Amino acid sequence: MFIVMSARATEAEVNAVRSAILAEGLQPHVNPGTERVVIALVGEIGPRRQALRSRFEGMAGVEEVKSISRPFKLTSREFHPEDTVIHVGDVSIGDGSLTVMAGPCSVESREVALETAQAVAEAGARIFRGGAFKPRTSPYSFQGLGVEALRYLAEARELTGLPVITEVMEPAQVEVVNRYADILQVGTRNMQNYSLLTAVGRVEKPVMLKRGFGATIEEWLMSAEYIVSSGNPNVILCERGIRTFETYLRNTMDLAAVPLLHHLTHLPVIVDPSHATGKRWLVKPLALAGVAIGADGVMVEVHPRPDEALSDGEQSLTFDGFRELMAALGPVHENARPLHGDPVLSGAALGVESGGRH
Amino acid sequence: MFIVMSARATEAEVNAVRSAILAEGLQPHVNPGTERVVIALVGEIGPRRQALRSRFEGMAGVEEVKSISRPFKLTSREFHPEDTVIHVGDVSIGDGSLTVMAGPCSVESREVALETAQAVAEAGARIFRGGAFKPRTSPYSFQGLGVEALRYLAEARELTGLPVITEVMEPAQVEVVNRYADILQVGTRNMQNYSLLTAVGRVEKPVMLKRGFGATIEEWLMSAEYIVSSGNPNVILCERGIRTFETYLRNTMDLAAVPLLHHLTHLPVIVDPSHATGKRWLVKPLALAGVAIGADGVMVEVHPRPDEALSDGEQSLTFDGFRELMAALGPVHENARPLHGDPVLSGAALGVESGGRH
Amino acid sequence: MFIVMSARATEAEVNAVRSAILAEGLQPHVNPGTERVVIALVGEIGPRRQALRSRFEGMAGVEEVKSISRPFKLTSREFHPEDTVIHVGDVSIGDGSLTVMAGPCSVESREVALETAQAVAEAGARIFRGGAFKPRTSPYSFQGLGVEALRYLAEARELTGLPVITEVMEPAQVEVVNRYADILQVGTRNMQNYSLLTAVGRVEKPVMLKRGFGATIEEWLMSAEYIVSSGNPNVILCERGIRTFETYLRNTMDLAAVPLLHHLTHLPVIVDPSHATGKRWLVKPLALAGVAIGADGVMVEVHPRPDEALSDGEQSLTFDGFRELMAALGPVHENARPLHGDPVLSGAALGVESGGRH
Amino acid sequence: MFIVMSARATEAEVNAVRSAILAEGLQPHVNPGTERVVIALVGEIGPRRQALRSRFEGMAGVEEVKSISRPFKLTSREFHPEDTVIHVGDVSIGDGSLTVMAGPCSVESREVALETAQAVAEAGARIFRGGAFKPRTSPYSFQGLGVEALRYLAEARELTGLPVITEVMEPAQVEVVNRYADILQVGTRNMQNYSLLTAVGRVEKPVMLKRGFGATIEEWLMSAEYIVSSGNPNVILCERGIRTFETYLRNTMDLAAVPLLHHLTHLPVIVDPSHATGKRWLVKPLALAGVAIGADGVMVEVHPRPDEALSDGEQSLTFDGFRELMAALGPVHENARPLHGDPVLSGAALGVESGGRH
Repeated sequence: MFIVMSARATEAEVNAVRSAILAEGLQPHVNPGTERVVIALVGEIGPRRQALRSRFEGMAGVEEVKSISRPFKLTSREFHPEDTVIHVGDVSIGDGSLTVMAGPCSVESREVALETAQAVAEAGARIFRGGAFKPRTSPYSFQGLGVEALRYLAEARELTGLPVITEVMEPAQVEVVNRYADILQVGTRNMQNYSLLTAVGRVEKPVMLKRGFGATIEEWLMSAEYIVSSGNPNVILCERGIRTFETYLRNTMDLAAVPLLHHLTHLPVIVDPSHATGKRWLVKPLALAGVAIGADGVMVEVHPRPDEALSDGEQSLTFDGFRELMAALGPVHENARPLHGDPVLSGAALGVESGGRH
Repeated sequence: MFIVMSARATEAEVNAVRSAILAEGLQPHVNPGTERVVIALVGEIGPRRQALRSRFEGMAGVEEVKSISRPFKLTSREFHPEDTVIHVGDVSIGDGSLTVMAGPCSVESREVALETAQAVAEAGARIFRGGAFKPRTSPYSFQGLGVEALRYLAEARELTGLPVITEVMEPAQVEVVNRYADILQVGTRNMQNYSLLTAVGRVEKPVMLKRGFGATIEEWLMSAEYIVSSGNPNVILCERGIRTFETYLRNTMDLAAVPLLHHLTHLPVIVDPSHATGKRWLVKPLALAGVAIGADGVMVEVHPRPDEALSDGEQSLTFDGFRELMAALGPVHENARPLHGDPVLSGAALGVESGGRH
Repeated sequence: MFIVMSARATEAEVNAVRSAILAEGLQPHVNPGTERVVIALVGEIGPRRQALRSRFEGMAGVEEVKSISRPFKLTSREFHPEDTVIHVGDVSIGDGSLTVMAGPCSVESREVALETAQAVAEAGARIFRGGAFKPRTSPYSFQGLGVEALRYLAEARELTGLPVITEVMEPAQVEVVNRYADILQVGTRNMQNYSLLTAVGRVEKPVMLKRGFGATIEEWLMSAEYIVSSGNPNVILCERGIRTFETYLRNTMDLAAVPLLHHLTHLPVIVDPSHATGKRWLVKPLALAGVAIGADGVMVEVHPRPDEALSDGEQSLTFDGFRELMAALGPVHENARPLHGDPVLSGAALGVESGGRH
Repeated sequence: MFIVMSARATEAEVNAVRSAILAEGLQPHVNPGTERVVIALVGEIGPRRQALRSRFEGMAGVEEVKSISRPFKLTSREFHPEDTVIHVGDVSIGDGSLTVMAGPCSVESREVALETAQAVAEAGARIFRGGAFKPRTSPYSFQGLGVEALRYLAEARELTGLPVITEVMEPAQVEVVNRYADILQVGTRNMQNYSLLTAVGRVEKPVMLKRGFGATIEEWLMSAEYIVSSGNPNVILCERGIRTFETYLRNTMDLAAVPLLHHLTHLPVIVDPSHATGKRWLVKPLALAGVAIGADGVMVEVHPRPDEALSDGEQSLTFDGFRELMAALGPVHENARPLHGDPVLSGAALGVESGGRH
């Protein structure tokens, strides 16, 4: 349920509504909006729905009380029609520009980190990525350098000016990762690690939430809802492929998810073609498709010497490959961008319901 | 197994090799190539492999005898490195140009057929599509107008000059569909209807083979192999989405299949975003992505009044929607085309093996 | 829509209703029932629904006019609450007994056919299976002996008294297969080959319809509906595994489909553990599970010398393995059978709706 | 790699090998075995393989040095051929007996906990289950009573004598859950939460690891490997259904995983039909199938008044339903148990490799 304040509502009236929500044992979430304030109230409402509606409709400055039809509330376009734009340093994600995040799968050494950061910065990347804590299927695989890697990332940021993104794997790591990184990443295997989602929902820095390889779009948005309802509105979604019966490639990239998400939610959407395919030579075509379909950014793995990488070398671009990719993305982005209409209108007119199957 | 003839081999030497293959109870398939003739021999080879190799290596004009590492042979890049270009009227599919196929899901009436054909022709479509025999999940749904619809399709061709594509559902229909249509379509549910594949492999007209919604890429190519080994080399592949656990949309479009196929096979690849998503407003973004990733064409459903369509109205574009799509596709195609390098080289250097999973 | 006649309705009243249905351009399908006659009317009803209902409610001998809530009509429990029992020779399928169908994947020779038929008959199989026309992924694999194999099957029947089941792949083969076989099988790849479904719907002999490996349960029942609405009420369903992301085994056996089908439809359900797993040593445990969950029968592949089989040898049982299986199935069937309550009541009380996902 | 000691090796020789492994920077894991000691060495071996092999082959008391062919090592049958039997109170899991775990989805109140514990104990359950910390898709759903629920579980154990199993969701909860529970459960969404796996690998109590609904069997065993290699050998695997394209039921139960796991690993395997289907009336047939296929136990949800349950009421059995289930399971277990041969032999003779697909 959310409350649309009148365009002339005073700050005192807004505050009165917030206090009334708190008094009901619920959480108010305020979207200041561009024209009018909207306040969502979240928590277990149950049978009180009608009583609450009547109560809030009667308060001064309230124009309307509405229901949110989907299970995700704060992350829905219904509650928050404007695009969320996320600011990290001088980078804006979600404003129509294209943000490329690049770097090694894991930060294996100071040298690899600095060398790669410089190369991708020169080629036009806006965010530097690199793994410090690595979730690996096998307990016997290289698990990342940990805090040491976080320090190299910070050094790479100083060197290049690029903000840094890295993965956090458990609640107890949030504090230290938050100290070094500019964006915290939650990986595909942890998409429904609710303790971790709540923990990253309590920090101020943006969070990039990768889709679980076995997760539906609705579950993904519900996981984003955990972060936002815990207090952190700055969530970036990252499509990285889902698991299907097809075995030629590691995963099947669900690119239709990008325009669908732009309709369902106001959060920016990034695509990761490196993990989706697991093949270096497919990164460029998939990145181009991602940009053409309207993604707000692309995340790719780059390594100075992929054959020596301690993890995922097969899918990492060389420096040359990355420069070639950057040259290709620009023109396609420029051409495709104006072609994507208003996602709210495009879908709203037609309904976006779970479809029958053929 | 295939035999590479020397660049100076005479016609008589080529014929001698063909005769020797036939004498072994196998089928020779000749790829004239641009520089040298290559001859595949197909059939059950089994333990004769080594003996056959020795025999053919000793024949005049033979440069080399090679194995094809994949289970699809005639459709593989290894045997046939040059792109197959398919000519239908003055349309060429697979030569780097973009072929748009458009029309109603089913040909419901003469009026709908002619009206739509004219509209899509004016907007730039190169092939007119329309269903005469409709495979429907329910026996109680509209099953198409049959031969009557074929006549309307022929009339639409006369009116607009556009070649016509339509689906054939069983071997007994091949003769009549072949009489009216320019391209025969095999639908997703019949991708492994081997009797049908063999039957369309015996006609001269091109065949468009849709991917089974539950089929792997390798099975898809094996089905194409049925057609080609039956004598029809003009096969177009059409990606239309696969079935996954995600339920928001009807199917998950596997766009990575496009560059993967361009590496594995010489056949052209088309994408069908209408059936993949089942939603009109997602057709444009998915078509753009398909073009950006290198598809040789796009097939979409267009209907003068989608709300009145007897089948799949929800996914059909209006005439206005189709014109808007055509305006968008051109520039993206122009930009993306030169960005796709040589698919043979790009993949070959790195290997395209069934991947581990993450 | 279906019409429940009163328990005292005369034959003339039943006939009057049938005629009225035909006069509306619809097909009547009569279920004589144990207590009262029920008549389904199938075809495109559309906006006539209310008018038809009124008309039939007013006819003599009509007790009630009801809607069928699901898209499958004649195959639904709503229309036909009693179990369908299929009689082939002296075998009854669907009456609570356990029917084991066994034989080689393909009938490779007269010798293999006769030898195997005798062995499985002695061990307790009630139906002999064997492939004459084989749908193979590769055009270069052994495609079956065709009509010659049909003759060996007939000979095996004479020798052992076992009725014979074999696959039919296209409408043009129906006549010859019908001449030799006792049950016609439609394979997994042809589950949505509607021309074939209609063709086998026009013969008198029972049809076993395998589930498409990519097909939902609803689609499967819609395919059965094609057969039944074409005039053949004797359909057996066969679960043989679906395609999932798991790759250790060939397919994932969906055993929960068995009780679910027993609730949704009156048709008998068989399980095929050979194709589901592709591994000989998993056939017995999966067969046991299938029997414990309430399947009406089990189909398995048996070969005198599996290592020499021309197809699927890896999943075929030896004669000894088959005898061991038969010894195991009996006691589990006896124990499990009375534990399965009335499928109509069990599900009806709680509703069987497409579920949310976790 | 693992080292098979001679049957006559002395304790001193075993210790010398352990020390040598530690000196190499690797971890020794000792399987005392019934006839001879086997010692696995785990960690990053890389290029040292040959050198290590030579070194250990030369040590006193060593009979043989072998490689483990699969990526899971300590959990593999190769290293540890004997079944692992887990003892909790006077319950043994994995010794051929059938262990039923039952209780409410979440411990909603002291009353529900005690009432249910008594009912399931009387009906023959051996373990009491109940959720204290609940992973819920929505942040707005009931999240469990937490530590308060743990205290009720402990009280239920005192009342009935049944050991207690409950889920732990993050490393920080391990200590408190370990204090109250007898078995720690890791849920499907946390199957690849490696920080949690490592944390439960450091406690003494057994861990039940549910399969991730999107996880392969190999990934599942790799997750078990995290626990065992962290020091806790007492892991129970629980199959609870995987996510597929079928939507009638919540998930598809992969029952073939049970005999497959019994071949691949020595750990006991439990099935959970409540979560797999989400339907009360399918719990009994699926549980019967699970027992017939050889599962070491069954976990089901039971609630005194399912319609009032705060979570998953639709899939919970009533007390009567549970008693009926228990009466059915016994005879099927007795009949099926001796039919499952030695899993090592049955599979080993034939190989269990990732299969081709049909």
